[in-house]
Amino acid sequence: MNEQAKKTVLSGIRPTGAAHLGNYVGALRNWVRLQDEYRCFYSIVDWHALSSEYNDSKVIRGYTFEVACDLLSLGLNPERCVLFVQSQIKEHAELHLLLSMITPLPWLERVPTFKEQQQELAEKELNTYGFLGYPLLQTADIIIYKAEVVPVGEDQASHLELAREITRRFNRFYGPVFPEPQMLLTEVPTLAGTDGRKMSKSYGNAIYLKDSEEVIRKKISPMVTDTRRKRRSDPGEPDDCPVFTLHRAFVNKETRDRLAADCRSAKGGCLECKRVVIDSLIRLLTPYWEKRKSYEANPTRVWDILEEGNSRARRAAQKTMEDVRSAIGL
Amino acid sequence: MNEQAKKTVLSGIRPTGAAHLGNYVGALRNWVRLQDEYRCFYSIVDWHALSSEYNDSKVIRGYTFEVACDLLSLGLNPERCVLFVQSQIKEHAELHLLLSMITPLPWLERVPTFKEQQQELAEKELNTYGFLGYPLLQTADIIIYKAEVVPVGEDQASHLELAREITRRFNRFYGPVFPEPQMLLTEVPTLAGTDGRKMSKSYGNAIYLKDSEEVIRKKISPMVTDTRRKRRSDPGEPDDCPVFTLHRAFVNKETRDRLAADCRSAKGGCLECKRVVIDSLIRLLTPYWEKRKSYEANPTRVWDILEEGNSRARRAAQKTMEDVRSAIGL
Repeated sequence: MNEQAKKTVLSGIRPTGAAHLGNYVGALRNWVRLQDEYRCFYSIVDWHALSSEYNDSKVIRGYTFEVACDLLSLGLNPERCVLFVQSQIKEHAELHLLLSMITPLPWLERVPTFKEQQQELAEKELNTYGFLGYPLLQTADIIIYKAEVVPVGEDQASHLELAREITRRFNRFYGPVFPEPQMLLTEVPTLAGTDGRKMSKSYGNAIYLKDSEEVIRKKISPMVTDTRRKRRSDPGEPDDCPVFTLHRAFVNKETRDRLAADCRSAKGGCLECKRVVIDSLIRLLTPYWEKRKSYEANPTRVWDILEEGNSRARRAAQKTMEDVRSAIGL
Repeated sequence: MNEQAKKTVLSGIRPTGAAHLGNYVGALRNWVRLQDEYRCFYSIVDWHALSSEYNDSKVIRGYTFEVACDLLSLGLNPERCVLFVQSQIKEHAELHLLLSMITPLPWLERVPTFKEQQQELAEKELNTYGFLGYPLLQTADIIIYKAEVVPVGEDQASHLELAREITRRFNRFYGPVFPEPQMLLTEVPTLAGTDGRKMSKSYGNAIYLKDSEEVIRKKISPMVTDTRRKRRSDPGEPDDCPVFTLHRAFVNKETRDRLAADCRSAKGGCLECKRVVIDSLIRLLTPYWEKRKSYEANPTRVWDILEEGNSRARRAAQKTMEDVRSAIGL
């Protein structure tokens, strides 16, 4: 595709830990695909991490490295996308501040995730000015690259709606500086973690991409399946089986359908069924593990790649900020 | 005084118009005095102006020039203080963002000026995220220069209290990066404007420093005095006279006491009394007017002075931000 005709994509990942299977199916595998069709800006959003991890901020830099290793090993190609670290592009903070002046407080207060996350992460004291402004910083992250397309899951749709609203308001006040970012709605399959609840780093139930073959076996083998299968001879229901959420994401349809039928008829057992998904994961992750080993062995290379991405992102952001300042008149 | 031993002062003025007599007695004459004793950073805070003038932002740059002319003509000496424009130091926005992560929302919501100003300036729609964050941006303005002393009037005392609270919280989380700024409480005499209400640009009743002798005469001569003095022979009460608020600020005590006695005994008339304060103002402002003419005639010189101040402020702010980033670990 002609480089000039490509639309610009922006997406971000919070460095609050290494990537797990949930991150992979919800966003990262999509990032790899989008590289071909779009001009992609991918940001490791460490300021966003700080909004919840401000009390333990020293871990963020290490996680930035982890996430960078994850992304590069999954197949992000620094020659085909701009991979950068948010906090290294000060212009995001400047645009966030400028946008704050025109953003009605109720627009932020009514974003559903604001109250939800505060309740969910009650121990983190998220009733802060910065956490309220989270979707506003996301807006700055997006429009500073004049991004036209933003891949989002259902749960983040309200944030992009807000970004679009703020963009329209800016353009109405100061002239058409920014394209209104469009939503590329991504299906985000819910994966169960090792305890059967939704896979999430904060639940401590995640299977990480960087987990070894042995760790993956140890995590999946003891997982509870459909509780109706007390004995091997009891039939089960894959739709009620936490482990089968992994099959839906990682096992091909033909095999999956066979396993589901075998479960419902008690023809197949859970151990065998788990082995299939474990094998699929190992096949999927083997090339990633190999690449990751080489990045881990050479941290300087990873930081250099990020530094180069930062420079490219900074140039783009600075260019936009010239337009912004001249539109506002500062 | 030894330059090294001088404490650092930070103060700011919003470029929302040329300076008037109220600004002068409340802050600016103090700025000139403080230059000797302190290492002063004086900021023309155009981002703060934007928080209320976002709908008419194109005027701000012109007012930045006006205010710079005012300050220089009053006697700020760019070799003895750092005079700079807030929006040219991006680090303020970065620190504001970082501080936002640790600032509990109720700390900002309870600042009295937040609700007061919204009511007072109802036509400006100030229920914005940026306006709520105003005192947080002020905090960044102050501590980014590691300022130890901040001259404030009674009405801004709650803002400095908040700045001190946020500073303590930052230092507790990340280590002792910032000195806790101390309040230098400044007496702010209330001056009456031409309509008898408090002098304020937004009431359209202000007497500007740059007003000519003729304009000052025209503004003060018709001002209403103590309404009990219907006739020249009626005695009056200076404490109830709007014009006398100007005497308190601009006429020496001896003359002022004589005029007060003459008013109470109906020995002296209002016209004569007004002439005294007008003469005092003209004496005070004549050297300022002369300087201002030369700055107005040479705008490039003014912008160059600001540019030089920006460079000095930027160096100081960048140095602090290195400490901040390393303390947080980003």
